[in-house]
Amino acid sequence: MSVPTSSKASEPTRDPLRHVKAAVRTLKAYTLTPRPAAVKIDQNENPYELPPALKQRVVEQVLARPWGRYPAFDPRELIDALARHSGWRADGILAGNGSNEMIEALLLVTVGPGVRVVIPEPTFTLYALMTSILGGEAVRVTLGPQFEYDVDALLRARREAAAALTIVCTPNNPTGGVLPLGAIEDLCADGDGLVVIDEAYHEFAGVSAVPLLERHANLIVLRTFSKAMSMAGLRLGYLLAAPALVREVNKARLPYNVNFFTQVAALAALSERDILDASVARLVRLRDALFTQLADLPGLRVYPSRANFFLIEMARHDPKVVFENLYRRGILVRDVTSYPRLSRCLRVSVGTEEENEALLAALSESLA
Amino acid sequence: MSVPTSSKASEPTRDPLRHVKAAVRTLKAYTLTPRPAAVKIDQNENPYELPPALKQRVVEQVLARPWGRYPAFDPRELIDALARHSGWRADGILAGNGSNEMIEALLLVTVGPGVRVVIPEPTFTLYALMTSILGGEAVRVTLGPQFEYDVDALLRARREAAAALTIVCTPNNPTGGVLPLGAIEDLCADGDGLVVIDEAYHEFAGVSAVPLLERHANLIVLRTFSKAMSMAGLRLGYLLAAPALVREVNKARLPYNVNFFTQVAALAALSERDILDASVARLVRLRDALFTQLADLPGLRVYPSRANFFLIEMARHDPKVVFENLYRRGILVRDVTSYPRLSRCLRVSVGTEEENEALLAALSESLA
Repeated sequence: MSVPTSSKASEPTRDPLRHVKAAVRTLKAYTLTPRPAAVKIDQNENPYELPPALKQRVVEQVLARPWGRYPAFDPRELIDALARHSGWRADGILAGNGSNEMIEALLLVTVGPGVRVVIPEPTFTLYALMTSILGGEAVRVTLGPQFEYDVDALLRARREAAAALTIVCTPNNPTGGVLPLGAIEDLCADGDGLVVIDEAYHEFAGVSAVPLLERHANLIVLRTFSKAMSMAGLRLGYLLAAPALVREVNKARLPYNVNFFTQVAALAALSERDILDASVARLVRLRDALFTQLADLPGLRVYPSRANFFLIEMARHDPKVVFENLYRRGILVRDVTSYPRLSRCLRVSVGTEEENEALLAALSESLA
Repeated sequence: MSVPTSSKASEPTRDPLRHVKAAVRTLKAYTLTPRPAAVKIDQNENPYELPPALKQRVVEQVLARPWGRYPAFDPRELIDALARHSGWRADGILAGNGSNEMIEALLLVTVGPGVRVVIPEPTFTLYALMTSILGGEAVRVTLGPQFEYDVDALLRARREAAAALTIVCTPNNPTGGVLPLGAIEDLCADGDGLVVIDEAYHEFAGVSAVPLLERHANLIVLRTFSKAMSMAGLRLGYLLAAPALVREVNKARLPYNVNFFTQVAALAALSERDILDASVARLVRLRDALFTQLADLPGLRVYPSRANFFLIEMARHDPKVVFENLYRRGILVRDVTSYPRLSRCLRVSVGTEEENEALLAALSESLA
C-alpha cells in the first residue's frame, strides 16, 4: 500500500480513510439496484409463499411476546428444531441472520493474513469478498468447460496452497452444478483443511453432505431458509459441524443475532415440512420442464442445474440487451455478466408455471 | 502459537481445530445463561412496551408482504427515516442487525494484525473481543477512581499507540459515566485516528455526538433500537459517519442484513417518537429517584449514571450471594463480577416504579 501504516503524533495527518485496510479500499462493494417487476426471477426465491394460516399463527405469537426484550442469547428451541430437521446434533449447530452471517463468523475465526482459501470460480461472491477483507488469500479454481466441478483441480489447489479452507457451493450459484458426495469425502479425507459445503440449494438437488459430518471433523455445512424454505425476507441461516469446531465459530457469532420474529417463523415453518416439501417437489418438476423448453430456444444455451435456477448463455445476442428486453416485459432476471467467464450469461430462477411461460415467451421474442 | 501454521500433504495431520486462529482458541466465549424472572432488570431494556396499536399496525403490514422475498439490499426507506430521526445525512448512515453488527463491520474493515485499538476498561466486552479475533491489539485505558472517563489518559494512549481506533461507550456500560462532548472533540481533533462513540444509551443522557459529525471526518457514532427504543427483540442498530467512511464500512456489511419485519417495526416506532420520548422521560425520572434510594441503603455504594442502569458495589456482602438472594425474590440483575475492577459489583437496570420498589425492598433485606 502507498499510504503510511502508522501515524506520528508530532506530524498529524488528516486522512481518516487511511485507517481502512488497503484490501478493503480496493474492493468494489457488492450491490444490487432494486427494480420492481411483476415476474421477479432474479434472486432464486421460492415463488410459493408460506400458507396464510401459518403466517397468521406466527404474528399471533409475535404479538403475545414483548418486543422490548432481547431474544434468547442462544436460540435453543430453534436449534433443537434444526437438529431434528437436519438429522445432526444440536451442539453442532449455530444459527444466524442468514447463512451470510455464518460464513462471516466462520471466516472471522479462521482467516487472517497468510491464510489461503480455495474457492471455485465463478461462484457466490461473498466467500472471496470476506476472505479479502480479512487479509486472506482466495485461491481460485476455475470450473470445467460445462461449469462442472473439477475435483482433481480442487484437490490439487488445496494441497498446493496448504489451504485452511475450501469453500464449495453445491449446487453452485450461479451455474447450478453439484459436487458429488464422493468428491466431498475425498476433499475431507485429504489432510485436515476445513471443507465448507454451502447447501443453499440442497433441497432442489435432493442431496446433502450432512450425513458425512459424523465421519469428518473438518466438514462444515451451511444452509439457509432463504431459498426452498421461502423465508428470504426473514433472514435465517445455519451452520452444521463437529461440536468442537462449532464452539470456536460461536465465539465470533454476535449475541442475540436471530431476532424473535424470525425464530417464531422458522419454528412454524419447520413444523409444516409437508407444505415446504410439496413446494420444492413442484419447483423441481417445473425446473425440469423449463430446462427442456429453454434448451429448445434457438440462440440460447442452458446449462444443466440441480438448483432452482438456470444459467443461460446467449450465442449472438448481447445479454444486457436481452436483460432489458425481458425487463420491459415485466420480467426481472439476474445479470451475471460481470462474473468471470459469464460475460454472455444471465441467470433465471424457476418461477411458477405462469412465470416460466412468461419468461419463455419473452425470451423467444427477444432472441428472434 | 505452538501448532504448525501450514500442513504438508506428505504428512497429513488430522486436527481441523488448528485452522482456528490462536487468538480465537484462547478466547472465552461471551455467554449469558437465560434465567426467567418476574422482574427482569439484567439487560438495560426499556420496560415500557411499544403501544399495542402500533404493534398491530406492524403485523398487518408484515402479513401483507411476501415473506419469501428478500428485503431490500439497502433498506432505503428506513435509512431515510433514521436520517430524519438523527439529523444526519442519509448517505452517512448504515443499518444493521443490532449495533453489534455495525461494530463488527467497522472493525472488519479497519482491524488486522498490528492495528491498535484504544478501549476503556471496564466497558462493553464486544469491542475487545472482536479486535482480538481480527488479530488487532486492544490497548486498555482504565477508568478513573469513580469510574469516570480519564480524557488525558485516553489522549495519551491514543497517541502512544498510534491507535487506528478509539472506542468509547457513553454513557458507559456497565458503569454509567459519560465522556463530555468537549472531550470527544479533543479526541477527534488529535490526529486522524477513528473515534467511535457508542451511544447505545444516549437518549437517557440527553446528549449526542451526532452534531459533531459535520466537523469531524474521523468520528463514528453507533446507536441501537434495543434500549430506549424498546425493540431489543427485533435487533436494529445503526452507524453514522462521513459518507466516504460509510462507503468503506458498507463493503463489509452483509447484504439483506435487516429483515423486513424489523424494518417495518422500526419505521412505525420512528413515526411515534412522542411515545418513546415520554417513556424515556419517565425512565429518567425513575432513575434519578432510584439513585437517591440506592444511595440511602447501608452497605451499598451506587455510582452516578446517565444511562438506564446503575452499577452497585457491595461493601461487605458477596455480590454473588446478593445476586442469588435477589433472584430468589424474582429479581434478575446482571452479575458483572468478572469485569476488571468490578468484582464487588452488580448492575441493575431502571425498571418500572413497581420493579424499582421490588429491587429496593429485596436489596435492603438482602444487605440487612
